[in-house]
Amino acid sequence: MNLPENTIVALSTAPGVGAISVIRLSGEKAITLTNSFFEGKDLEKVKGGTFHFGKILNGTVVIDEVVVSVFKSPHSYTGEDVVEISCHGSPYIIQEIIRLCLEAGASLAEPGEFTQRAFLNGKMDLSQAEAVADLIASSSRITHDMAMHQMRGGFSWDLNHLREQLIEFTALLELELDFSEEDVEFADRSKFEELIGHLLTKTKTLLDSFRLGNAMKNGISVAIIGKPNAGKSTLLNTLLNEDRAIVSDIAGTTRDTIEETLNIHGVLFRLIDTAGIRDHTNDVIENIGIERSMANAAQSDIILLLIDMTSSDFIKNPDPLTEFPWLQEFKSKIILVNNKFLLWQNEPEVKEIKWQSDPDQLYIDARDQFGIETLKQKIFDRAIGGDINTENTIISNVRHRDLLEKIKISLEQIALGLQTGLTGDLLAIDIHQCLRFIGELTGRVEIDRDILGAIFGRFCIGK
Amino acid sequence: MNLPENTIVALSTAPGVGAISVIRLSGEKAITLTNSFFEGKDLEKVKGGTFHFGKILNGTVVIDEVVVSVFKSPHSYTGEDVVEISCHGSPYIIQEIIRLCLEAGASLAEPGEFTQRAFLNGKMDLSQAEAVADLIASSSRITHDMAMHQMRGGFSWDLNHLREQLIEFTALLELELDFSEEDVEFADRSKFEELIGHLLTKTKTLLDSFRLGNAMKNGISVAIIGKPNAGKSTLLNTLLNEDRAIVSDIAGTTRDTIEETLNIHGVLFRLIDTAGIRDHTNDVIENIGIERSMANAAQSDIILLLIDMTSSDFIKNPDPLTEFPWLQEFKSKIILVNNKFLLWQNEPEVKEIKWQSDPDQLYIDARDQFGIETLKQKIFDRAIGGDINTENTIISNVRHRDLLEKIKISLEQIALGLQTGLTGDLLAIDIHQCLRFIGELTGRVEIDRDILGAIFGRFCIGK
Repeated sequence: MNLPENTIVALSTAPGVGAISVIRLSGEKAITLTNSFFEGKDLEKVKGGTFHFGKILNGTVVIDEVVVSVFKSPHSYTGEDVVEISCHGSPYIIQEIIRLCLEAGASLAEPGEFTQRAFLNGKMDLSQAEAVADLIASSSRITHDMAMHQMRGGFSWDLNHLREQLIEFTALLELELDFSEEDVEFADRSKFEELIGHLLTKTKTLLDSFRLGNAMKNGISVAIIGKPNAGKSTLLNTLLNEDRAIVSDIAGTTRDTIEETLNIHGVLFRLIDTAGIRDHTNDVIENIGIERSMANAAQSDIILLLIDMTSSDFIKNPDPLTEFPWLQEFKSKIILVNNKFLLWQNEPEVKEIKWQSDPDQLYIDARDQFGIETLKQKIFDRAIGGDINTENTIISNVRHRDLLEKIKISLEQIALGLQTGLTGDLLAIDIHQCLRFIGELTGRVEIDRDILGAIFGRFCIGK
Repeated sequence: MNLPENTIVALSTAPGVGAISVIRLSGEKAITLTNSFFEGKDLEKVKGGTFHFGKILNGTVVIDEVVVSVFKSPHSYTGEDVVEISCHGSPYIIQEIIRLCLEAGASLAEPGEFTQRAFLNGKMDLSQAEAVADLIASSSRITHDMAMHQMRGGFSWDLNHLREQLIEFTALLELELDFSEEDVEFADRSKFEELIGHLLTKTKTLLDSFRLGNAMKNGISVAIIGKPNAGKSTLLNTLLNEDRAIVSDIAGTTRDTIEETLNIHGVLFRLIDTAGIRDHTNDVIENIGIERSMANAAQSDIILLLIDMTSSDFIKNPDPLTEFPWLQEFKSKIILVNNKFLLWQNEPEVKEIKWQSDPDQLYIDARDQFGIETLKQKIFDRAIGGDINTENTIISNVRHRDLLEKIKISLEQIALGLQTGLTGDLLAIDIHQCLRFIGELTGRVEIDRDILGAIFGRFCIGK
């Protein structure tokens, strides 16, 4: 792959008005180019790792007073010379400084182009580069930890370990081919069979982690379903408000992204919009409500079935599912939540009824925050089902899943070849294909421009 | 005023997801505090003006790999020790780093608190500090230039010059009071009268600049008014799209802020929402349309009255205003724009009509972009009416306008006192009041906490 020769520029901080914004340049001419419109120290003479106060000039007009940080190759994010211009966060100033950079010969960076250069310059491998985008997008502890683990090489280490063992065996196998007329076996078939079995287990573990990884990355969806007046909105608000209160303590976090998400022990849950199943007054609308509820139930990973304990149905009907026949097919996803417990407890009839709480069901009172922590724990346990150890590699990237699927198939083919006594040359072909797939994961092999484009295209501009 | 002792922290870049975000700390403990969770060089031993790569740790958990810039007092924005942590722009990472800062003893910064500290530490005067917020909010060349001029001291210079001349005279006047029994006049009354006249002219010029300054800061409002089918939407789109195309070339500018604004020669125009006067089909709605149009006309600085040249009314009625009787009262704001010129020109009847274009009216064809540049120039000239010279001080801040108004009144009172031969001691009282108002503008006198709160409260957090 050819290393790029041009110098790129982009706004690297979030768009919008802020106190400061950072414009980043990377490439051979990053320093000279900035120097051409910077009034202050001569940037070509300063050391890397230093920053300098000065003015950005458009001719004689002062565009801004800025701080310029100089990173010298290879001690930078991209491995190239990098300049970061920290300016006032005004849309006009940002536009003008970028315009000056372009006029001085820079090109506008493509999404992810800084990280792509870091990859091309060997500062990180492909799966690490991909983790950078995940890290930026992470909004919960778990997604952050997964991305950080991958960015710091956890994933790559696993894969490269796999790859090296395979390469070692292939070398032996190819040695055999060189001596093919002599009918020797350098490569111990039974040891190899053992290795392939080991690799298959590893691949399958990684593949299995995808379900969890993907759910954690995109948030685990929870639908709240119940009859009109069961307290769905109250529960939704109780769950959301508690969480909001925590988040709004911290300045700078945007409300938008947490609107309908809930963070339990660092895992993100998405509460499916329940507008369709809110309380209705006539039958037609109620039917539409049920249809929407069904759709929500089908989409969601977890269903909270909310029962109103003060309704007359409650005691009459020990199995609430009979009232929601269409929920039968989603039975395994349901958590049964009995609401208005405190209200119910105070009703006079209650004392006369012989009633026993069901250990599989929950009893809460959403209005009084009663039982909410228990409910959250239950939602968490149901979603995660055991300890999450982010020190273990969890994959969450569809490209990785697809490649691991291909690796699994080729490993199975190799295993079959070994069992059926396939000749070394044919075996070598399968192994090479397997190695190619692994290489594609970490970027150890030459990768199509198109694939690189797709990987870095999902980055934001400026990274 | 007491200097603050605590160390403050805030996200200084725009909220939202970006490649990088910058968290800023300022105060005595900014460096020690950051050092407590930073793994890398010992920040307490590094020089100011340098930046350092390292990890932010929460216990043993790596929160992010960051670059930390160290500014040592007084060589920083606030004049205090400042640390800027440049991290990945993930909401979770930002939240965690700010949380670590708070746990280590920092307080969350109030809006504008960094700039307030810069003011308290004498890094800038009050009108310069105020200009920082304007600079950040500036989205056009003119608002940028006005703010930059003020931030670089243009405004303060004018005012302090005024103030010094007054102080000099007061000193002489007070000398007189000390020798009051001897009936001497150190202060030359006629020279002083001249000075006051000069100051009044200056103050009035500044006050006059407010109308323009305020219009430029908030955008000059333009209403497009016309009958159904006159081409209002087409004109709106033609005006907006051209501008959009320019803006979208530059990455990082948000679409939101330009939705309905138009930039002509660096001045921002706001196109008043014309939804109410778009084409309607029945009379009731049409009446509502007229009511809304009237409201828009009243609000706007400029009215574009759009006439359809292909409608039968066009030739019949040489004065289109007779068709819009309710527009009479806004006559001075109207620019008459005849639309569909090209279409009209191709109609067979046109050749037979003896018709002469009116030099006071415009002839355009919005669909074919015909005459649009001339229209823009006309809008610009009407709004600005001459050259804008941002090197002259233009005020745009309501607080400044109000204080200048007070200064004007007290100057007039002094002038009156001089004319009526007021005694030196009474004159001195008026002069002191005038000096106090001028001092409030630049922050040279002790300013109420409440006023400071109001001034810095309109900043974004992190500045």
